[in-house]
Amino acid sequence: MNILEIIAKKRDGLELSEEEIKFFVQGYTKGEITDYQASALIMAIYIKGMTKKETTSLSLAMSESGDILDLSRFGQNVVDKHSTGGVGDKVSIILLPIIASLGIPVAKMSGRGLGHTGGTIDKLESIPGYKTDISIEEFIQNVETIGISLIGQTMNLAPADKKIYALRDAISCVDSIPLIASSIMSKKIASGANKLVLDVTVGHGAFMKNLNDAQKLAEEMIEIGKLAKLETVCVLTNMNEPLGHAVGNTIEVIEAIKFLRGEMPKDLLDVVLELGSQMIRLAGKGENIEENKQKMFENIKNGKAYNKLLELVKNQNGDISYIENVEKFEKAKYIVPVYAQKEGYIYEINAENIGKLACKLGAGRIKKEDNIDKTVGIEICKKVAEYVKTGEVLAYIHLNKEDEIQSSVDELLNIIKISEQKPETEKTILQTIK
Amino acid sequence: MNILEIIAKKRDGLELSEEEIKFFVQGYTKGEITDYQASALIMAIYIKGMTKKETTSLSLAMSESGDILDLSRFGQNVVDKHSTGGVGDKVSIILLPIIASLGIPVAKMSGRGLGHTGGTIDKLESIPGYKTDISIEEFIQNVETIGISLIGQTMNLAPADKKIYALRDAISCVDSIPLIASSIMSKKIASGANKLVLDVTVGHGAFMKNLNDAQKLAEEMIEIGKLAKLETVCVLTNMNEPLGHAVGNTIEVIEAIKFLRGEMPKDLLDVVLELGSQMIRLAGKGENIEENKQKMFENIKNGKAYNKLLELVKNQNGDISYIENVEKFEKAKYIVPVYAQKEGYIYEINAENIGKLACKLGAGRIKKEDNIDKTVGIEICKKVAEYVKTGEVLAYIHLNKEDEIQSSVDELLNIIKISEQKPETEKTILQTIK
Repeated sequence: MNILEIIAKKRDGLELSEEEIKFFVQGYTKGEITDYQASALIMAIYIKGMTKKETTSLSLAMSESGDILDLSRFGQNVVDKHSTGGVGDKVSIILLPIIASLGIPVAKMSGRGLGHTGGTIDKLESIPGYKTDISIEEFIQNVETIGISLIGQTMNLAPADKKIYALRDAISCVDSIPLIASSIMSKKIASGANKLVLDVTVGHGAFMKNLNDAQKLAEEMIEIGKLAKLETVCVLTNMNEPLGHAVGNTIEVIEAIKFLRGEMPKDLLDVVLELGSQMIRLAGKGENIEENKQKMFENIKNGKAYNKLLELVKNQNGDISYIENVEKFEKAKYIVPVYAQKEGYIYEINAENIGKLACKLGAGRIKKEDNIDKTVGIEICKKVAEYVKTGEVLAYIHLNKEDEIQSSVDELLNIIKISEQKPETEKTILQTIK
Repeated sequence: MNILEIIAKKRDGLELSEEEIKFFVQGYTKGEITDYQASALIMAIYIKGMTKKETTSLSLAMSESGDILDLSRFGQNVVDKHSTGGVGDKVSIILLPIIASLGIPVAKMSGRGLGHTGGTIDKLESIPGYKTDISIEEFIQNVETIGISLIGQTMNLAPADKKIYALRDAISCVDSIPLIASSIMSKKIASGANKLVLDVTVGHGAFMKNLNDAQKLAEEMIEIGKLAKLETVCVLTNMNEPLGHAVGNTIEVIEAIKFLRGEMPKDLLDVVLELGSQMIRLAGKGENIEENKQKMFENIKNGKAYNKLLELVKNQNGDISYIENVEKFEKAKYIVPVYAQKEGYIYEINAENIGKLACKLGAGRIKKEDNIDKTVGIEICKKVAEYVKTGEVLAYIHLNKEDEIQSSVDELLNIIKISEQKPETEKTILQTIK
């Protein structure tokens, strides 16, 4: 077997065998196959596509390229949760304590943000003291003791995926469904769960811009999951406008805390309940989705979920006085209200543009090495389809640089579109695919 | 403009502009664009193809990436000749002295052999003293004095093509018609002629394995020539069996010398006359192809062409006593006859396999850095369709290693196929396309 033959085969649109895909992934990870050879193969894959069998082989080969987390001590129904990325997505910080409060073990490694989408780990680090880089032993220990731990990717999970992803980014090969699917699934397979609920975001702020592509991606991942023995359910959720109200780091954590205290924006609640009810089902703790949602709702109302969050934060060295009193969180220097310039319906709040504006303010990274500013972000007061009067506050911009105030306000006014026409109502949960 | 957009455009099958192609070629030559980005673009070009306009832009951009030879002092009809590569192809050494003997200036830079195909420069260097690396000033001076000079590629012609070619070789992207066409034409444009006759070989021993591909390649190159003001004629010639009898270096030079003394194998004569008559026409020295062939034939018969070869060799420091007495050439240690094992028609002599065997004996290079052995090679006594009796000599293998004798004889007996059935007669000149 040699890489030239493998490249030529895919170039001509033929199916690669499991051995050939392994040969490539192992060789590339070790540096025996060059970047330019990998690049040619990736481009050929992008253009010619891959069969489900190939995509599964690629996912498995990448998942085997580094460490694999062993969660078998938690039984046969260890459920993981993942999102394909969104703007204002603080779901994990809300959902996982709820799940843990129902007695389902949660051992989750989360990622950092890149580009216009945020990352759970960056958000959690807004909580003073919260350690995201504890050892794997401590991580497992925490799950055993309190039923939940939420950390960063401290293990060397799927290094081949990291290398291939960086390459794809440098050669215009990011938006390929088989490549996205195998990238996500490789990390999830290595993460050790055997059940998975995937939040596949759809719309302006998501990787997948339309329902059709999102369905294809979902089906691809479910199929990979089937072949790789990681039972997967995909929930397709709307990401045209940001989820909830806050987009940033500290302000999203505050929104999550308030949610668990009962202050629940409708769209965020819908996503949390749909994902959670599927997780409960996969964990073998309830076949009835509506009943599962009810259980979750109860544990929010009775404070058990909130208490689980406190327990989680405390257990990971976080200062819970911030959770108990969110006013303690460090604020941005400027919190600037943005007023409606005219009366009408909120017609559009493009999530991608909001994400990019937040990123520009310092809430996100353009490159992996960038530092982020926890305090900045955008707090959107109105959701799409709400009616506003001239002069009403549409949003608050949290920022630290005075000279960015005017341009940010102007940009936000451009993003939040107001129209006399009422926009069509959009569903938050578009589809659930098993 | 940036490389990611250019890659994405070609990935999606769109036409690149002249500026975009220039941006890529210049950036890659300077090292500002990485190998892996070039690799992704080349693979996308391989799969999605290029329009004639793109192929021309690529040829021109590559030709402008280095030195450009100025031959304008020789007028408006400076004719160049090039072959897409063959086995036993000593045509330049025969044809160019004939052309020069007719008063048409010949200023030619030739290449070295690679893989199973030989190179004129390697062959010429079999002549003791012959200098292939003289300065450009001396080269031009020689053409002015005696009407001919034949040297190696001493100038930095189309370095972008060299870089891209090496990359294509490492990523299974060699056999793409637009990439082959622009590679050849870029070097020819930089070589300074304004008329070009191309020998497009077709068959086992050629890049193009069938007539259809060869026609496509020819049309592509003619179109590039048109747009780049390098009028091009393509002669499609048969390369199923080796051309003439000798395959090697010294033994090919000897065959060329003997040819100019009147010992002319039919297939070699056909190729020489067809290419030459087109060159004469393009040089503005005769519209009638048959008359042009007649003129060439006369200058072989009357010794003018042979004398021009002597003049060329002498002028480039070569020892003409070797030309005058070919017995002086150093011979291989073993010259082993290979006998027919049965009676019948010669059914096939696969040129590629002969080329590979010669290469294995040391006549060619696997890698650019390899040294070659001038003395070794294969002298084929019988051509396809000839009838042979058991025990007749089919060929002589010239080699220097005793332990290679038996395996070479066995291999050659496998290559020279004998059959009771007479093979279909094949034409040497398949088509001439203007």
